[in-house]
Amino acid sequence: MKQFFFYALFFAALGVNAQQNLVKYVKPLIGTEKMGHTFPGPTVPFGAVQLSPDTDTIPYEVNGKYNGSVYKYCAGYKYEDKTITGFSHTHFSGTGHSDLGDFLIMPTQGKLQLNPGTANDTKSGYRSAFSHANETAEAGYYKVKLDDDNITAELTATNRVGFHQYTFPKSDQSHIILDLMAGIYNYDDKTVWTYVRVVNDTLVTGYRQTYGWARTRTVYFSMSFSKPFKSYGQKNYDAKQAYRGFWGKFDQTRNHPEIAGRKVRMYFDFDTNEGEKVKIKFALSPVSQENALQNMRAEVTGWDFDKVKAQAQSAWAKELNKIKIDASEDDKINFYTAMYHAFINPTTYMDVNGQYKGLDQGVHTANGFTNYTTFSLWDTYRALHPFFNIMQPARSNDMVKSMMAHYEQNSLKMLPIWSHYANDNWCMSGYHSVSVIADAIIKGVYNGDPNAALDACIATAKKRNYEGIGYYMDLGYIPAEKSGVSVSNTLEYAYDDWCIAQLAKKLNREDVYQEFIKRSGNWKNNFDPSIGFMRPRMADGTFKKEFDVLNTHGQGFIEGNSWNYSFFVPHDPTALMMQMGGKKKFAARLDTLFTMHLPDEFFADTEDITREGIIGGYVHGNEPAHHVAYFYNWTDQAYKAQAQIRKILKMQYKPTPDGLGGNDDCGQMSAWYMFSSLGFYPVSPGGDEYALGSPSVKNATLTLENGKTFTVEAINQSDKNVYVQKVLMNGKELNKPFIKHSDITSGGKLTFYMSAKPKKS
Amino acid sequence: MKQFFFYALFFAALGVNAQQNLVKYVKPLIGTEKMGHTFPGPTVPFGAVQLSPDTDTIPYEVNGKYNGSVYKYCAGYKYEDKTITGFSHTHFSGTGHSDLGDFLIMPTQGKLQLNPGTANDTKSGYRSAFSHANETAEAGYYKVKLDDDNITAELTATNRVGFHQYTFPKSDQSHIILDLMAGIYNYDDKTVWTYVRVVNDTLVTGYRQTYGWARTRTVYFSMSFSKPFKSYGQKNYDAKQAYRGFWGKFDQTRNHPEIAGRKVRMYFDFDTNEGEKVKIKFALSPVSQENALQNMRAEVTGWDFDKVKAQAQSAWAKELNKIKIDASEDDKINFYTAMYHAFINPTTYMDVNGQYKGLDQGVHTANGFTNYTTFSLWDTYRALHPFFNIMQPARSNDMVKSMMAHYEQNSLKMLPIWSHYANDNWCMSGYHSVSVIADAIIKGVYNGDPNAALDACIATAKKRNYEGIGYYMDLGYIPAEKSGVSVSNTLEYAYDDWCIAQLAKKLNREDVYQEFIKRSGNWKNNFDPSIGFMRPRMADGTFKKEFDVLNTHGQGFIEGNSWNYSFFVPHDPTALMMQMGGKKKFAARLDTLFTMHLPDEFFADTEDITREGIIGGYVHGNEPAHHVAYFYNWTDQAYKAQAQIRKILKMQYKPTPDGLGGNDDCGQMSAWYMFSSLGFYPVSPGGDEYALGSPSVKNATLTLENGKTFTVEAINQSDKNVYVQKVLMNGKELNKPFIKHSDITSGGKLTFYMSAKPKKS
Repeated sequence: MKQFFFYALFFAALGVNAQQNLVKYVKPLIGTEKMGHTFPGPTVPFGAVQLSPDTDTIPYEVNGKYNGSVYKYCAGYKYEDKTITGFSHTHFSGTGHSDLGDFLIMPTQGKLQLNPGTANDTKSGYRSAFSHANETAEAGYYKVKLDDDNITAELTATNRVGFHQYTFPKSDQSHIILDLMAGIYNYDDKTVWTYVRVVNDTLVTGYRQTYGWARTRTVYFSMSFSKPFKSYGQKNYDAKQAYRGFWGKFDQTRNHPEIAGRKVRMYFDFDTNEGEKVKIKFALSPVSQENALQNMRAEVTGWDFDKVKAQAQSAWAKELNKIKIDASEDDKINFYTAMYHAFINPTTYMDVNGQYKGLDQGVHTANGFTNYTTFSLWDTYRALHPFFNIMQPARSNDMVKSMMAHYEQNSLKMLPIWSHYANDNWCMSGYHSVSVIADAIIKGVYNGDPNAALDACIATAKKRNYEGIGYYMDLGYIPAEKSGVSVSNTLEYAYDDWCIAQLAKKLNREDVYQEFIKRSGNWKNNFDPSIGFMRPRMADGTFKKEFDVLNTHGQGFIEGNSWNYSFFVPHDPTALMMQMGGKKKFAARLDTLFTMHLPDEFFADTEDITREGIIGGYVHGNEPAHHVAYFYNWTDQAYKAQAQIRKILKMQYKPTPDGLGGNDDCGQMSAWYMFSSLGFYPVSPGGDEYALGSPSVKNATLTLENGKTFTVEAINQSDKNVYVQKVLMNGKELNKPFIKHSDITSGGKLTFYMSAKPKKS
Repeated sequence: MKQFFFYALFFAALGVNAQQNLVKYVKPLIGTEKMGHTFPGPTVPFGAVQLSPDTDTIPYEVNGKYNGSVYKYCAGYKYEDKTITGFSHTHFSGTGHSDLGDFLIMPTQGKLQLNPGTANDTKSGYRSAFSHANETAEAGYYKVKLDDDNITAELTATNRVGFHQYTFPKSDQSHIILDLMAGIYNYDDKTVWTYVRVVNDTLVTGYRQTYGWARTRTVYFSMSFSKPFKSYGQKNYDAKQAYRGFWGKFDQTRNHPEIAGRKVRMYFDFDTNEGEKVKIKFALSPVSQENALQNMRAEVTGWDFDKVKAQAQSAWAKELNKIKIDASEDDKINFYTAMYHAFINPTTYMDVNGQYKGLDQGVHTANGFTNYTTFSLWDTYRALHPFFNIMQPARSNDMVKSMMAHYEQNSLKMLPIWSHYANDNWCMSGYHSVSVIADAIIKGVYNGDPNAALDACIATAKKRNYEGIGYYMDLGYIPAEKSGVSVSNTLEYAYDDWCIAQLAKKLNREDVYQEFIKRSGNWKNNFDPSIGFMRPRMADGTFKKEFDVLNTHGQGFIEGNSWNYSFFVPHDPTALMMQMGGKKKFAARLDTLFTMHLPDEFFADTEDITREGIIGGYVHGNEPAHHVAYFYNWTDQAYKAQAQIRKILKMQYKPTPDGLGGNDDCGQMSAWYMFSSLGFYPVSPGGDEYALGSPSVKNATLTLENGKTFTVEAINQSDKNVYVQKVLMNGKELNKPFIKHSDITSGGKLTFYMSAKPKKS
């Protein structure tokens, strides 16, 4: 009764009663089937811990060969799978490359088995069969029954702590396994080193160091049990163990409190009564075991699982309540799940004492900001960071500060490309940090030194030996002989350079503006007027002879073909339109894009998307064309944008595990959904305009951090009424399909009048 | 001229003019041939850096096989070798097991070769031929001409910084190689990880993590060049490199400032004029790159190699001058080289800011003490630490504090056994930390909490699952079925328990005293009266049937046979003597020990010693019998001790590279030499008595830290006058061949009257 009062007071204090009903719309299982690459387990907004079941991340050996499904298991969990190997603490959300999966924990009973076993024969190892019928996934909470040993697993989390609750049957052979070899993007030698220290019979600390997508990554942990283990042990699977001799002075496999090696699996033994709960608090730190312990103590006191779960769901409720929408139940699920996915990455990369590991592999203390990592910038600069600049300006400010810290600590003196855990993997093209930074400064959310930020952008954009930048600077394009992705690189650099120019303009640095506004026109150097498409160009200036505008491979583009990438001039649609023959021809090209047939042969080898992720030749499942539907706004046929956007919203986002048409890409797909369902989209981040589309909500109220509210209303909204007849901003009709950032941040109301008939004028 | 004045003033200020002449007696090459396992390169007293040439530590592949000379290269350098592979920064002095050899640097010229090559064909790699004719090794200074490329290498050091000076011929292809794969006790997978960051064209930082004798060891570095390199690069020799794909965005082999991997060799290129010197300051830290840089800046300003060399030699002069002896030139070389070797280990394991890595792999700050590591305690408890308690009490105090920190940070809650670099390798038998601690407290040099120290001793001595301690506690001995070294373990535990008892007595903890004084008699349980020797005993109480008192293998002893180990009751020689049949029989047994023939078959497999390290059946090259010659003092034939000691001093210590009869063992052999040449020896550390022997010096004055002086004078001293006629302490004749610790620390004079004739009464 007391406990009930506590919760009631707790929620009342946070105004959670009103908030709670939105959490129910979050369905973390959306995107876990096929290509979404999302994970179903609990995390808090931008949390350092993503505690989630893994269904088959561990390459297990079959007849001397490892299963090689690395790509499939970017998020560790596949809805299609029938077994769970365990619950690990770090997961990417929606990426197209894998890493993480640190510290896999699995409860078992009976005969101890320290190998994971195979999906076909769960009895051969510690893994267990499970059924979706016995599975619950909510924002901040996950529950599943592990069929093999009839153990119920429940998970929740704080920012830096994963909280496990396992309900065991009665047994004197109950085990908790801690597999330090397990990991995502695993292969034989990924785990460089692990160290574990059993401090006492309820506390264990240590670290795990890996060599994966992040080349040099160490995660420290502190693990606390609600009940003392009666014994523990380990097995080291490394065939090459140095200096075993004197270690034989102890039996190091049983109850030996110091464990270290490359391939270690540990276990902890318990006697359990029927229905007894064994709980684990598992804290992470990028810096030290001591910090992990400090994080644990700061974030969770006691062993009240339900309280921590309530806190996690309250944190989500607080975020979700920033936007209240009126829409169908399915659309609410889509919207709030999108919001949930959008607020997972970037992740906190800092201990409660402010310490974090820098790019220089040294320990730093964040001075007045939260340090973030997991920057999938090629994806997220497009809509996710702009979305943050509306709904999360304080965090966006800290993200830019985190990027600047990355720059300063980076021996290369570059802003992040694709960074996680004090590493840059340089994945994908462009240097899109500059877009994020320019957008944040131009939209007034960055309170650091803007000139230092601009200098960092310039330094990055002039890194001559990175990905053809030297050629690009000298020739205005990258010769096809020098790069397999010469065209997409040039196009993305040109857009990024425009961002730098915009920032320079704002800061009155005229020489920088002139230099980069000139560079921003470089996209023209890859436009072949004879065919009307972007096309690789040779060092001698001629266009590459053999060329296929449909093929996504070997044609000079990354994750796209010329058909899609030829529209990649987000910063100057008017000029592109002129190159493509003017408004009518441009609109016709867009029509063709959305209706053409992309032959399977060109689709077959394209990662990251399902067949359903494609509409005609438009590939929504990958990012390069995300802005393209909005290009109709620059023609006289904006109504076509409206129809296409509503079509994409419907086709590419469904409230089912296989509901995402491609990788969610750390929230970029979700941010596209939210913007578009609200009726506007940042076609060219770094500018302060949004192109209007067709809202799918009936009504939405955005509560901003500055206390103002911005409301979107769609009069006559329905599934058929996808066309916009007129738009009022604060009651005044707009004469063009664009609004400014300040229109939103000043508060106000955007009213769309919807109709089933296009307004063709 | 100015510089000359500076040095003149500098030395004058330190009173170095008087000191310098002792440095000349230090010959670091002593012990580098055969079994001494000393290293010739520079270090300062108890310094963290031991910068020294390695002649063949790197297992290079020949026909698919690695050379396996790991044991031979404990110190990295063998006088017998004809080639130098480079100069690395960490070396054990005199050990019988290998590790370290971090950060090998080699200057080369001409075509770049990143592999070391082989001794038979130096042109096949970066190594070079050299000649002892072109080699100089002094305390704090080493110089050698590298014949292959005619480069002169000079080395000196501060506590935490190795200072290199390479004089090159003219070339536009001069290189400095930094081999991060190289190491001592190397094998294929020893190097767990290396990370390097090129901060600018004169500064490089990074770390190296290994899995060797120390299981989890990381050394951080900061490397500064006197001249900017014109270019640099690396090769990664790891066949298994993860995620090469996107790294291809840079050419990471040339001028790429962030390098990481398992098997990395780096190079730095220079143009050099004829005779141009390129200098390197290379600082180490156990904690971080930042700390390494801070260490460098704190310890060395500027690039004056001669100044740093002078400082290093001045530091040695200051130590050496604490004991001034009058002896033959050869004996002075032996004595001061012994003092030099005695003052190398333990080594500083702490940054200038007080931070160090603890056994828990966390960062700690030493509160008011210098943290030391490299505790080869099975060797050094015997004479080295007792020697420190006379000549280095402040450092001895800090060493005990370091052991206590080890204990507190150790998840096993044990004092160190054989520890280095935040690891314990548990090498050899016993728990001799307790001897060191008891000796320090009983002799009044420890200012920490003595009861806490005693508690740590007790906890260590009761670690039931360590090396048979449980059996020892239950049965009073370790059954032969349970351990291959059951007898030596029991004997050493019994002695250590006596130390605990002595400490408990001093602290008035009567119950502890009673418990451990009883345990200290356990040696009797392994004494077989029927044969008069120590002998393995079975679980049923019977003695092991098949048994050979001469064999050193498989008989229940470590590094010794029953003949030697049967004398291992240093704490109760009288009782042992009684067991062996009284004074006469005991003396006769000692006579036999020193005159018997030890068959080659039992010697052949004994590591650590040369054939010359054996006198009769007495093995001086290993430690267990180091006190035995002094046992004559308990009989009526003390004169035999005198003769034997002088014989050992002569036979086992020679002023030549092959002058040591066995491993110097981190200074234990050297400490034996100093004690014995001064005429007294701590037969049973933990007690406050020294047994008198026969001094080999004519005169010696010890200047103590308390300001007092203790003088030893040997009247009628000569090589033939090895027998002592009488001994006066402060003019008063002693009636037994023992003195007390307070006799020394109170200051005074010990006068021996020497003769060629034994005094048989």
